[in-house]
Amino acid sequence: MAKDSKTTSSSMEWRMTMPDNSSTRAEQCVEWQVTVPEGSTVKVEHETGVVARAWAWLVRFLVMMKDKFVGFFKNVWKLGVDDPRKVMHGFKVGLALALVTLFYYTRPLYEGVGGTTMWAVMTVVVVFEYTVGGCLYKGFNRATATATAGSIALGVHWIAHQSGKQFEPVILSSSVFLLASAATFSRFVPTIKTKFDYGITIFILTFSLVAVSGYRVDDLLQMAQQRFSTIAIGIIICLFVCIMIRPVWAGQELHLLIVRNMEKLATSLEGCIEEFFDDDSNSEKGRSQKSLGYKAVLNSKASEESQANLARWEPRHGRFGFRHPWSEYLKVGISMRYTAYCIEALNGCINSEIQAPNSVKECLSDECKKLVTQCAMVLKELSKSIKEMAQSSSLDLLVYDMNMAVQDLQDALRSLPSQLQEKAQVQNVATMPLMEVLPVITVASLLTEISVRIEGIVDAVDSLRELAGFKPVSDDKPEKASTSNDETKKTIEVI
Amino acid sequence: MAKDSKTTSSSMEWRMTMPDNSSTRAEQCVEWQVTVPEGSTVKVEHETGVVARAWAWLVRFLVMMKDKFVGFFKNVWKLGVDDPRKVMHGFKVGLALALVTLFYYTRPLYEGVGGTTMWAVMTVVVVFEYTVGGCLYKGFNRATATATAGSIALGVHWIAHQSGKQFEPVILSSSVFLLASAATFSRFVPTIKTKFDYGITIFILTFSLVAVSGYRVDDLLQMAQQRFSTIAIGIIICLFVCIMIRPVWAGQELHLLIVRNMEKLATSLEGCIEEFFDDDSNSEKGRSQKSLGYKAVLNSKASEESQANLARWEPRHGRFGFRHPWSEYLKVGISMRYTAYCIEALNGCINSEIQAPNSVKECLSDECKKLVTQCAMVLKELSKSIKEMAQSSSLDLLVYDMNMAVQDLQDALRSLPSQLQEKAQVQNVATMPLMEVLPVITVASLLTEISVRIEGIVDAVDSLRELAGFKPVSDDKPEKASTSNDETKKTIEVI
Repeated sequence: MAKDSKTTSSSMEWRMTMPDNSSTRAEQCVEWQVTVPEGSTVKVEHETGVVARAWAWLVRFLVMMKDKFVGFFKNVWKLGVDDPRKVMHGFKVGLALALVTLFYYTRPLYEGVGGTTMWAVMTVVVVFEYTVGGCLYKGFNRATATATAGSIALGVHWIAHQSGKQFEPVILSSSVFLLASAATFSRFVPTIKTKFDYGITIFILTFSLVAVSGYRVDDLLQMAQQRFSTIAIGIIICLFVCIMIRPVWAGQELHLLIVRNMEKLATSLEGCIEEFFDDDSNSEKGRSQKSLGYKAVLNSKASEESQANLARWEPRHGRFGFRHPWSEYLKVGISMRYTAYCIEALNGCINSEIQAPNSVKECLSDECKKLVTQCAMVLKELSKSIKEMAQSSSLDLLVYDMNMAVQDLQDALRSLPSQLQEKAQVQNVATMPLMEVLPVITVASLLTEISVRIEGIVDAVDSLRELAGFKPVSDDKPEKASTSNDETKKTIEVI
Repeated sequence: MAKDSKTTSSSMEWRMTMPDNSSTRAEQCVEWQVTVPEGSTVKVEHETGVVARAWAWLVRFLVMMKDKFVGFFKNVWKLGVDDPRKVMHGFKVGLALALVTLFYYTRPLYEGVGGTTMWAVMTVVVVFEYTVGGCLYKGFNRATATATAGSIALGVHWIAHQSGKQFEPVILSSSVFLLASAATFSRFVPTIKTKFDYGITIFILTFSLVAVSGYRVDDLLQMAQQRFSTIAIGIIICLFVCIMIRPVWAGQELHLLIVRNMEKLATSLEGCIEEFFDDDSNSEKGRSQKSLGYKAVLNSKASEESQANLARWEPRHGRFGFRHPWSEYLKVGISMRYTAYCIEALNGCINSEIQAPNSVKECLSDECKKLVTQCAMVLKELSKSIKEMAQSSSLDLLVYDMNMAVQDLQDALRSLPSQLQEKAQVQNVATMPLMEVLPVITVASLLTEISVRIEGIVDAVDSLRELAGFKPVSDDKPEKASTSNDETKKTIEVI
């Protein structure tokens, strides 16, 4: 067996003795002694037979494949354990399909829909989505598109039939060409794309099939009726299984995503500042993980939008009414991303190569930490308020405190030059070291900007609260706080 | 007709005379004179009949509908004019479908594939995608999934048939349940989702159809063979039309997207700084539009990823080989987004309420503008280099200049306190107004961070250049610049 070894640690002596009877295969017995200088590479190649080498390759290949498979299945297993609803979804699709096959094995049902059960199978496979909203969206699109395209195709067919045998193929083919072209182009229109993308595929498909097949099949109307009823059966089975067995609501998913992301934003903001001001590097990694939570917010645009689109199709479920203002969640998401961009820049500054000395950091440490704590408290309160769908009694007070913290930080910044001057005098340095102060000032400035953006989140959540009708609070405490809060805002604007 | 009028400009006298014979409808003849004070509202309501009101409502409704339709079609028309390839795509789909209908009208062809032409229509409708990569991805997935699922289904069928009439439905139904469940769950695995999502849908569909339909149809093998050949015909027609007539390559789209976004990044960076330092607000709007180009970079993650996924399926086209390193484009995209986050924060600081007085801005104006110009030049050079797929001879020099500009800015920051002290003495102010300097310092600090992130883009493009084999430059100028550049980097790091 070829052996490839690299010494990495130190100069060493390598001795190996292999007794005659230890090997049963075509390997040769060897005894050797090598002195290897530091850092060099030794490659020993044996003259082994082709069979042995092939065997070795095979063993290594199998081990590698085994490792890959084991790794893959471990990942898949973890996926299932982390979110058992995904496994459940698999079983639900299986169940819906098994229910459809009943139509094949139960003769009366089979004859009732006339052998076009294929369409029911197809409907279940393509309509069954993870969320109820997805199912409803696809089911509605499929049903309406089939009905519309079917009726138009019948109309075109009738016209073609009236024009005589000669023109029939021409009219049918050109109608397919024109309608398919127009429908395909319409998919590029954003509003149509969002709501009817799947419907247009089905429209083109049904129209082409009906328009063309009519040339061969005599009783088109009966066929259309059969096909529509099988598709309806498929959709009903889908919706039944999807809604009755552990439903996953797109709306609720969106709601939870926003709540979770809000908490992550709070945690990562705290993590960033801890990283910047605290020197002791124990639990460095855990903190670093914590401070990267904002990345989830940066990357959740696509899932927020798709979930909001699907949530619109959903009926009343849990605490969400039929016309729940899902688009407001998108606005909250946008304002959160807006804050996350700033946290990203803050993170960049904190991890940059130019670092302020601890003595300078100390001057603003308390104020920065206090502001971040207040910001995080506002975010957590917002998250709690959305989660419980209840107005928060302490939110206005917390925003007020956050703004006070901003003011404190600005006061501290104002007195920073004199503080530094004192320090410089103690250290007998003439000029003020602006370059050393720079990172701290930038961090303070970005924190101020972040607090402004958090107020944007507060506004977005406020409009969500109004439109979604969050449970009101009973005491009149917040009213007072709100007034003083507005005053503070003005004060700060004047500054 | 009810008339609702609001005076907005000034106090006025309003006189209206309507002669008897001017109206043929149920309107009453009126003559009135009103003197309206400034800013007040006049609402004159006639006692008209129900018919007249309904008519008025109908007219208004029709006008509104007309406006909506006209607006919608203007938008659609603009969409087509802006990117005629989208219109072309519509016609291509129409053409492919028209070609398939030939199978219906040409009897020999029709009999050759035995009446299952439906599958060819269906294949064209679902496989035809905008880009060649999309077509190939779906075509490959459909073909392999149909073949695999078909053979497994035949095997299961044989086993079920051997077990006797009683067990046949049980075995078939449970196999559908198990395979559909497993396949559906596997779609949640990210690697499978990216490459085979569509294939799995087709796998479940084909397996269910074949496994179930065998209970009724005798000659399963022949049916499977027919279906496969029609699907193959559909795929071949799709690919033929898609590749032969004005093909849209996902790879090229990705390439152009990255080039365009890089330019937008440069322009918006320049726009932001112009906005900050220039006071004259003429062409304010155009500049604002310009400075928001980075938003395109922030939002292009999804399209970059999907295009890179599809580009992998494409054969050699234009200057892109079969194994062109598409994933490197994604890395360039990530580093660009990383820079865009920082530009976003910069934009936030620039538009914030706390603004530095012009006298303070002046101190750093030249250095900041110079740095931004250098940053933009580097970005534009990178964009040009990617666009032409050629190594840039001046890039290293430009990066060197950018780093020099960073150093200049830092020098200016170092001398800022003394400059401000002078100014304060001139204005007879005792303390240094740190709060007034804050925005400028933050902007300078963010610009430094942006230049660091641009170096990240340079590295990403460099690794793309290496793997994609950009055309080399002939002169040896860059080598020199590169060395001095490394030295500068070190100098700056030491600072």
